[in-house]
Amino acid sequence: GAGADNDLYINQAVVFIEDAIQYRSINHRVDSKSLWLYRWYYSRTCQWILSLTITVILALAFIEEPSSLTVTSDVRYRLPAWNPPCGLTESIELLCFLVFVVDVSVKSYLIGWKEFWKNKWLMAYILTLIVSLTDWIVSLSFFCKESVRIRRILRPFFLLQNSSMMKKTLKSINSTLPEMASVVLLLAVHLSLFTMFAMLLFARTKDNQQDKEWVVYFRNLPDSLTSLLVLLTTANNPDVMVPAYSKNRAYSIFFILFTVLGNLFLMNLLTAIIYNQFRGYLLKSVQSSLFRRRLGIRAAFEVLSSLKETPASAQQSCVSVGALLQVLQKVEMDSRCKQAILRSLKMCSCDQLSAAQFQKLFEELDKDAIKQHPSSPEYQSYFMQKMQFAFGHPYFVYLGNVVALANIISICVVLVVDADKQPSERDDFFLGAINCFFILYYLLEMLLKILAMGLKRYLSYPSNRFDGLLTVILLILEIATFAVYGFPHPGWRPEFMGLLSLWDMVRLVNMLIVFRFLRIIPNMKFMALVVTTLLDLVKNLRAFAGILVVVFYAFAITGIMLFKGAVVPLGNTRYSNFLQGAQKNSKAEFTGGCTPFSIKKVVVLYFKEKNVVSWCSARFQAEVIYCLLYVLSVHLICRWAKIYFVAWWLISSVIWVNLFVALLLENFIHKWDRRCQRESLSDIEYQRTVELMFRDVLEEPTEEELMEKLHQHPHLLLCR
Amino acid sequence: GAGADNDLYINQAVVFIEDAIQYRSINHRVDSKSLWLYRWYYSRTCQWILSLTITVILALAFIEEPSSLTVTSDVRYRLPAWNPPCGLTESIELLCFLVFVVDVSVKSYLIGWKEFWKNKWLMAYILTLIVSLTDWIVSLSFFCKESVRIRRILRPFFLLQNSSMMKKTLKSINSTLPEMASVVLLLAVHLSLFTMFAMLLFARTKDNQQDKEWVVYFRNLPDSLTSLLVLLTTANNPDVMVPAYSKNRAYSIFFILFTVLGNLFLMNLLTAIIYNQFRGYLLKSVQSSLFRRRLGIRAAFEVLSSLKETPASAQQSCVSVGALLQVLQKVEMDSRCKQAILRSLKMCSCDQLSAAQFQKLFEELDKDAIKQHPSSPEYQSYFMQKMQFAFGHPYFVYLGNVVALANIISICVVLVVDADKQPSERDDFFLGAINCFFILYYLLEMLLKILAMGLKRYLSYPSNRFDGLLTVILLILEIATFAVYGFPHPGWRPEFMGLLSLWDMVRLVNMLIVFRFLRIIPNMKFMALVVTTLLDLVKNLRAFAGILVVVFYAFAITGIMLFKGAVVPLGNTRYSNFLQGAQKNSKAEFTGGCTPFSIKKVVVLYFKEKNVVSWCSARFQAEVIYCLLYVLSVHLICRWAKIYFVAWWLISSVIWVNLFVALLLENFIHKWDRRCQRESLSDIEYQRTVELMFRDVLEEPTEEELMEKLHQHPHLLLCR
Repeated sequence: GAGADNDLYINQAVVFIEDAIQYRSINHRVDSKSLWLYRWYYSRTCQWILSLTITVILALAFIEEPSSLTVTSDVRYRLPAWNPPCGLTESIELLCFLVFVVDVSVKSYLIGWKEFWKNKWLMAYILTLIVSLTDWIVSLSFFCKESVRIRRILRPFFLLQNSSMMKKTLKSINSTLPEMASVVLLLAVHLSLFTMFAMLLFARTKDNQQDKEWVVYFRNLPDSLTSLLVLLTTANNPDVMVPAYSKNRAYSIFFILFTVLGNLFLMNLLTAIIYNQFRGYLLKSVQSSLFRRRLGIRAAFEVLSSLKETPASAQQSCVSVGALLQVLQKVEMDSRCKQAILRSLKMCSCDQLSAAQFQKLFEELDKDAIKQHPSSPEYQSYFMQKMQFAFGHPYFVYLGNVVALANIISICVVLVVDADKQPSERDDFFLGAINCFFILYYLLEMLLKILAMGLKRYLSYPSNRFDGLLTVILLILEIATFAVYGFPHPGWRPEFMGLLSLWDMVRLVNMLIVFRFLRIIPNMKFMALVVTTLLDLVKNLRAFAGILVVVFYAFAITGIMLFKGAVVPLGNTRYSNFLQGAQKNSKAEFTGGCTPFSIKKVVVLYFKEKNVVSWCSARFQAEVIYCLLYVLSVHLICRWAKIYFVAWWLISSVIWVNLFVALLLENFIHKWDRRCQRESLSDIEYQRTVELMFRDVLEEPTEEELMEKLHQHPHLLLCR
Repeated sequence: GAGADNDLYINQAVVFIEDAIQYRSINHRVDSKSLWLYRWYYSRTCQWILSLTITVILALAFIEEPSSLTVTSDVRYRLPAWNPPCGLTESIELLCFLVFVVDVSVKSYLIGWKEFWKNKWLMAYILTLIVSLTDWIVSLSFFCKESVRIRRILRPFFLLQNSSMMKKTLKSINSTLPEMASVVLLLAVHLSLFTMFAMLLFARTKDNQQDKEWVVYFRNLPDSLTSLLVLLTTANNPDVMVPAYSKNRAYSIFFILFTVLGNLFLMNLLTAIIYNQFRGYLLKSVQSSLFRRRLGIRAAFEVLSSLKETPASAQQSCVSVGALLQVLQKVEMDSRCKQAILRSLKMCSCDQLSAAQFQKLFEELDKDAIKQHPSSPEYQSYFMQKMQFAFGHPYFVYLGNVVALANIISICVVLVVDADKQPSERDDFFLGAINCFFILYYLLEMLLKILAMGLKRYLSYPSNRFDGLLTVILLILEIATFAVYGFPHPGWRPEFMGLLSLWDMVRLVNMLIVFRFLRIIPNMKFMALVVTTLLDLVKNLRAFAGILVVVFYAFAITGIMLFKGAVVPLGNTRYSNFLQGAQKNSKAEFTGGCTPFSIKKVVVLYFKEKNVVSWCSARFQAEVIYCLLYVLSVHLICRWAKIYFVAWWLISSVIWVNLFVALLLENFIHKWDRRCQRESLSDIEYQRTVELMFRDVLEEPTEEELMEKLHQHPHLLLCR
């Protein structure tokens, strides 16, 4: 009937508007049942379950067999890690796979058969699931004793396919790959030509004493190639040059030429290319997000305009305000936006909305969220007003900063004085006494500020929340210290033991005080700018970070698989010493076992002995890879390790860092240009996203484009 | 009289146009004698003498007392450097100073008394000369035995003040300093807070065995500060973390946080700031160059329009073509431009030129130089035409590239096969034979190309010149080899000795063949783009390179002065081994003399024992500084050295490299945008400068601005 039809149209409009809000595609089924399923699938609970499942399956690596989640990473001291019984992690895995199977079925059903065949991500998802399940069955049939588990390397894919932003970013990165490949090819040509040159220049001579050093770096082709590759990362910068230089100064020309061309020109060229290419693509992807939003709103308008209650006689299609109100009630969206839209609806007194008016109503979604601080309380008494003026004044904040600085300096002085004292000689009386005084001041400052600003206004500032929280923690710690160890007095020895030693307590308090000093940041203009840029960057970096996690995870699992079971705890040498020795290429330590074994030991110490995440994050700068590459260059044995490390260096250090620099440049330059504009609105806080950053360069899609796209919708049949 | 006046006006116009061509300021005296002096001063001979003087005074450091211009840098082998007798370098210096005195007097006279007081560069020039001369007198009165020579540090100033482009660049750098200082301040805050945190976190415990490693990195405040500063350069990246990490994995969070914030965010922020700021300033300085050019042309127009022969009745001032022709005859300028201007003058049939027409005529100066290649010879015979077609075809070039590649591969194979052979086992027969064959092919290729293209067209392509020159050199080398050692035969041993051993000859030939392989570059599109970008960059970098030389020179001289006379040749340990040992912090080697002495030895080995320029260029990447900083961090003794190295790291590695990246980004992005546009004009070669790069964003100065500036001219009195 007409009522059921109207309900369907209203529901369609609700879903389309929700699609617009979330930048989702509208190309899904639009019949009643599918709409219910669609809303259920994209409900918070369902999405939360999906995210949890992804987290769980990724986290499994921490407790699975070749992992080692122990406190210390020292092979001699650490206890054997807990090995879950066969079947425990596997059953958790199966549960996760079942959730993914439901996920992929619902997704596939919702977009429909035709669209399914066009969607490569969904196909890859199904393929990944099939491979994983097969691998799972193989694993169980071997009673978890199989050596290779392909499904582990595939796991990060589940993270990747669940985020549209990550998929977009990956597409952008993918588009810059040809240009990057060109530069990498250029680097390869540069490297190989210079390698040949080096081998001809630093050839073996008869005098064995004289070219002893060349044997280390340019003995044969792979050696030379590795030496120069490591020189490209500047890890062996002076070492490789020193023997040649001490023979003849002119040899340095070769190394300088190589470094300048390779490191200064080609490497920076890579930055330039990535910056140039990536800028365009980020903008493009944001543009397509905008298109999706406009399209969703327009689709909602179109279905609402075909409601029966609309006068059919009108030339232009339009939507009644009543229908829109009905839709808005059902739509799940930010309450601030909803209020704003309802307010505009009331202001516009008309009864029917045209397409343009409809679109304009929803522009509220694109706007920055503006946060207003609650006002201060108004006191009646003159004294209180004076107090409020005094302690609400910026100078009071500055005074607080000065006191915090004084506290820091006093801690610093004590640290310098106590640096060389034995723990038994130390006396914490002085530090305890001054800290007690300072913490009392902080408490007083907090209370006076709350008095002047009112609790609500006080808490609405992030800097105050930070400040207050730390002050309360400090107070609790101090009270606990006094309760256990008594008040500070001369001879207040740090050895007194309670739950923590007094010494640890005092250290903790001092650390918190140092941390609290960060409150000065908002008071320094340039620092505030930098910090807000960094915070923006972190927001915009989420997609990048996701991809990075994917890459790290895949590399870590591959590394564990490649270098598994080759580690043997060393006897009486400390492993860190050994590691340092290895890095430093001190030949003496290798003479005993200059075999594949010693190399593997080093490699594996870095892989198996540290758990996955620590390993990943510790290798963030990829600097250690240089060291390992260096070790490998000297003892050229494990070819797989070399390829693995070079790939890792290229991806994590070269490409990712350059992408990061590109994003930072982009963010910072946008921010800098707006600086003047924003200084006037200092009391208003913005929430910026990638979309908002590019807003002034984005193009609005035209009516024709929108309608053309709507008519291509696989499930929606528009009347006109 | 009127004739003399007319002559003066003509001369003024000539000088103004020459000013415009060279982007010089027109604010100089304009009476007849001064004009003569001005043209004499800016004549090629005078400027050449000035440049020579600057080169000589800078080069003096190579032969002056604490220098060491020897082949080897090994203190044990090298002969004592030649010490010039007292008075030799000093008299050369005096000559140079006299030239500078003449230079500064002429310059001061020419710009006039009023302008002189406004010109800070000239005042600094005079001051520098006075200080240098005083120092020179002191030096001579001590019979060259004085220890401190201030005038040496001041020398690079003479280089700086002579180049207007360098002065402009310095101004740009100067303007970005406040922003840079903010980030550096932020870095300092970051560093100091983390240092305090580290000292509290990694405090001394009772168990001496456990915190043995902390003593190395966080013993006291300066130690901790240095450890973290070095961590900021990533030089000690894994080492500093390993002991803490092996104790408790959670400690790595501290190091990761520090590295991510400091190295990834703040350091890259510096790049972003420099890029953002510098971009604007470079544009601005180019804009002011354009203004100078337009102003010079306009001034010439104004003085020519006040010539007596001009009809005074005309409302608009204008210039007769005859006067302009007279001026053009006298002006020294690029003959291509002059021809173009004369041609346009002929084309425009009018007798009088308005200001706009006059300005338009000289726009030829702003245009790219377009180079046309001469045409190929036209052969009558059908056979010759076929030949010309075949060998002028691009496929013939590709064939040549393939042959060159084959040659490279064959050399590579021989190198790999011979890598482990003793020199006495080697047989050069195979390599000699194939090289002989390939060189004959190269000769044939060259001759055929000359036949097809004609000698003139052949030589007009830089790639052909490169190719031909190398082929000729290879041919000569090969003939010489055969003349001395006979034709290649089995058992052609590399030990045969002549002027060079056969082995060296063959190596030289091989190196030249590898070098010749670079001819493939123009045939690969992307490579060609990159190489042209790099060449542009080198052109635009001249001012930067100049400033870099100034900084390097000052640092080198300061280093020599600071660390003078502390080196003692080591006995039986090889100095390179010692150096490597020092870098690698192997304590054993330092236990013998862990005193200021051993530190100084290391430092001085880097300063005094290498000569100035090698030192400068070898330290280009400043990587070695990290190692030294590292050594210093362990043995914290020489405070001066530390400050010196930190300053050096900041200037050479942080600021200069970032400036370089900014310039590269700028250049590359401009180039990339134009790529499509230029691909169509592939046969035409452009000569690009900074000015041309920005041409489409430059604003033309308005008539009012020009006239206002002209009326402010201190020496020129305009009629109107």
